[in-house]
Amino acid sequence: MVFKKVLLRGASTDSFDSAADNAIDRAEETLENVKWAEVTEQGVELAGDRREYQVELEVAFELDSTE
Amino acid sequence: MVFKKVLLRGASTDSFDSAADNAIDRAEETLENVKWAEVTEQGVELAGDRREYQVELEVAFELDSTE
Amino acid sequence: MVFKKVLLRGASTDSFDSAADNAIDRAEETLENVKWAEVTEQGVELAGDRREYQVELEVAFELDSTE
Amino acid sequence: MVFKKVLLRGASTDSFDSAADNAIDRAEETLENVKWAEVTEQGVELAGDRREYQVELEVAFELDSTE
Amino acid sequence: MVFKKVLLRGASTDSFDSAADNAIDRAEETLENVKWAEVTEQGVELAGDRREYQVELEVAFELDSTE
Amino acid sequence: MVFKKVLLRGASTDSFDSAADNAIDRAEETLENVKWAEVTEQGVELAGDRREYQVELEVAFELDSTE
Amino acid sequence: MVFKKVLLRGASTDSFDSAADNAIDRAEETLENVKWAEVTEQGVELAGDRREYQVELEVAFELDSTE
Amino acid sequence: MVFKKVLLRGASTDSFDSAADNAIDRAEETLENVKWAEVTEQGVELAGDRREYQVELEVAFELDSTE
Amino acid sequence: MVFKKVLLRGASTDSFDSAADNAIDRAEETLENVKWAEVTEQGVELAGDRREYQVELEVAFELDSTE
Amino acid sequence: MVFKKVLLRGASTDSFDSAADNAIDRAEETLENVKWAEVTEQGVELAGDRREYQVELEVAFELDSTE
Amino acid sequence: MVFKKVLLRGASTDSFDSAADNAIDRAEETLENVKWAEVTEQGVELAGDRREYQVELEVAFELDSTE
Amino acid sequence: MVFKKVLLRGASTDSFDSAADNAIDRAEETLENVKWAEVTEQGVELAGDRREYQVELEVAFELDSTE
Repeated sequence: MVFKKVLLRGASTDSFDSAADNAIDRAEETLENVKWAEVTEQGVELAGDRREYQVELEVAFELDSTE
Repeated sequence: MVFKKVLLRGASTDSFDSAADNAIDRAEETLENVKWAEVTEQGVELAGDRREYQVELEVAFELDSTE
Repeated sequence: MVFKKVLLRGASTDSFDSAADNAIDRAEETLENVKWAEVTEQGVELAGDRREYQVELEVAFELDSTE
Repeated sequence: MVFKKVLLRGASTDSFDSAADNAIDRAEETLENVKWAEVTEQGVELAGDRREYQVELEVAFELDSTE
Repeated sequence: MVFKKVLLRGASTDSFDSAADNAIDRAEETLENVKWAEVTEQGVELAGDRREYQVELEVAFELDSTE
Repeated sequence: MVFKKVLLRGASTDSFDSAADNAIDRAEETLENVKWAEVTEQGVELAGDRREYQVELEVAFELDSTE
Repeated sequence: MVFKKVLLRGASTDSFDSAADNAIDRAEETLENVKWAEVTEQGVELAGDRREYQVELEVAFELDSTE
Repeated sequence: MVFKKVLLRGASTDSFDSAADNAIDRAEETLENVKWAEVTEQGVELAGDRREYQVELEVAFELDSTE
Repeated sequence: MVFKKVLLRGASTDSFDSAADNAIDRAEETLENVKWAEVTEQGVELAGDRREYQVELEVAFELDSTE
Repeated sequence: MVFKKVLLRGASTDSFDSAADNAIDRAEETLENVKWAEVTEQGVELAGDRREYQVELEVAFELDSTE
Repeated sequence: MVFKKVLLRGASTDSFDSAADNAIDRAEETLENVKWAEVTEQGVELAGDRREYQVELEVAFELDSTE
Repeated sequence: MVFKKVLLRGASTDSFDSAADNAIDRAEETLENVKWAEVTEQGVELAGDRREYQVELEVAFELDSTE
C-alpha cells in the first residue's frame, strides 16, 4: 500500500471551513482514493471590504496498482 | 500551583469547531479544573462520501493538592 | 514596497472564526493598508461554563511612503 | 469519538525496531483500543560495550464512553 | 524498559527556577521512578504588581513491570 | 538541472525498513531518475493483532529536459 | 478583547532572570495592560571577562478600546 | 479558487539567485498560472573546484477549472 | 539595555538582496539605533513576466531610555 | 561535567540500522567517553540499482578534565 | 571573519545558571575568541534525592587566520 | 563512509553570497573532502553606515579512514 500527498490551498469569501471544503472537493474531482487531509496553514487576504479565507491542506490519496 | 497537560483528539462529521468541542466536553467530564486548551492539529478523514473533521488539543488542568 | 507585520490575538465566546474576525476588525480600525493575516495559534480558555475562543494572527500591512 | 495520546519511550539492546515494539507492547497491556503510534525520537545510549536503542512514541488510543 | 512522559507546568512568584522545582516536586509526590525532565516553555503572567513565573516541563518516569 | 520532490507513504506489516522500501520501489516504477529520499515520518497503525508500519518519504527525482 | 504582542530582548550582566525582568520592566513603563510574556530565546554575549545575559520575550498586552 | 504547490530544486554554478531562477523558469515552462514561490532550503554541493548552488522552492500555481 | 524587534517585508523586482536592502533602508528611516536583522522568509511573487522578490526580516533596534 | 556534541552521518548499503552503527563505531574510534547519540535525519541515496541508507546522528561525549 | 560553533552541555547540582556557566567556562579554557552562546535545551536529571540541572549551549568563537 | 558536520558563520560587507563563500573558503582551507554545505541562517549586522552580511552554514566533510 503506497500513499501520495499533494499540497492544495482552497479559498472562500465565507469561512475557513468552506475554504477547506473547496480544496477537498477539488482533490476528489481529480484524484482517486483520497483518504485524509491535514491543515498546514490558515490565512486571510484582504482587498477593500472583501476578506478571502484561505486554508492549505496536505491531501493524501492511495495509489492504485495500475497507475 | 501545578498544571498537567493531556493530548486529546476530537472527531465530528460536522466541522472542526464541533470536533474541538467534543474533545473539550470529554476533558471536562473526566478532569477537574480544566483551564485552557491549545489546538495542535486539524485534519479530515474521508471514507466514501463521509468527511470526519478531527482536531487535536493540548488540554491543561490544575492539579488539586490532594490528588 | 515595504510591509510590516504585527501579532494580534482576538477573543470571542462564540467561535474561532469570530475571534479571528475581531482581531482583523481591530487591525483595520487602527492600521492603513492591511493586506493579509496568517493564523499562528488557536486556543480555548475555560472559566466555569464559559469557553473563550482565541486566535493569534500575524497581520501584514503596507507602509506608505510618508509614514 | 475522542482519542487520547500518551508519550512512551521503549528501550532495547537489539535495535530501534524492538525498542518501538517494546513500547507498543506495554501500551497494549495497559490501555484499551490503541489505534496508532508515531515515532517522535530515536536515540542510542552507550555504556561500555553496550548500546541501548531507544524510541519515543506518541501512542493514541480511543476513549470508551464509560471511562 | 519503558518510560512514560507527562507534561507539567509549575508556577512561582519568585523565579523560573522555583517554578520548575515546584513542578518536579509534584511529579515526585505522585509518580514513582522519575528520571528526567526537559523544559519546553518559560513564561510570565502579570496581574497588577505581581509576576508569576511559569515553567512547562516534559517529565519522564520509568514504568515498573506490575503497573 | 532541476529536481522535483513528491511525498510518498509506504506501508508494511513487517518493519519500517520494508515500508520505506515499498515507497521507494513504487517511486522507481513510475518516476525516472529518482535520486534521493528523506524520511519525514514513521508511524504504526494497529488493528487487532496486526501492526502496520508506515514511513513517509520526500522523494526527489531529476526532471529531464523534454518532460 | 484584542491583545497585541511585541518582541523585546533584555540584557543584564547578572543573570537570565534579571535580563528577563529588565525587558518586562521596560514593557510596563511604555505599555498599558501587559498580561503575559513568553521566553523565546536565551543567550550570552562575551567580551573579555564580561558576560552579558540576554533574554528575548514575546510580550502580550490588551488593547484598550480607544487606542 | 484552488492552488496546488510543488517542491522544485534548481541548481546553478553561479549563485543562489540563478539557481532559484532556473527552478522558476522550469516551473513556468510546464505549469500554467504560477503565482508565487517560497524558498525552503539553500545549499552548496562541492566537487573538486566546482561549487553548485542549489535552492529548493515551494511553487504555487492556480488550478484552472477544466484541468 | 532593551531591544525591540519588528517584522518587515521588503520587495524588489531585481533580487533578494535588494529586497532585503529596501526593508533595512526603511527601518533606518523610521527607527533609531537599528542593530541587526535576521532573514525569516524569502519568496517570489509572479505576475505575467514580472518576478517580485520578497524578503522578510526580523529587525532589532535598541530602545533609548526616554522613549 | 561538560559534554560536547558532534554531528556525524553514517552510510550503508544494507539498512538504516547499520548506517547508524557505522557512525557510532567511528565516533568511538576517535572520541573518548561517548555517552549517547540522537538520530536527526534518515535518508536514502539512489544510484542505478544501489540504495545507500544514511543516518545523521548528534553524538555526545563527556570532556575529560585535562583535554 | 569566520565563526565556528560547537554544542556543549554543562551540568550542575545547583541551578540552570551554574550549569550554563560551567559550559561557558570550559569553552573559554579550550577555545580562543569565544563571542556568544545560545541556550538550546534545559533539562533536569534525577537520581534519588539529587537533581542535576543541565543546559545545552551553541557556543560561537571567531577563527583566527592562522588556525 | 562517515561524514562529519561543522557549523560555520561567514561575514562580508558586500553580500550574503560572499559571506557564504568566505565560510566555505575557510572550510576548504582547514578540512579535507568538504562535500556540501547548507544555509541555516542569514542576517545583517548594522554599525553606523556599515552593513555586515552574515551567513551560517552547516558544512559536511567526509572523514578519511586514517584520521
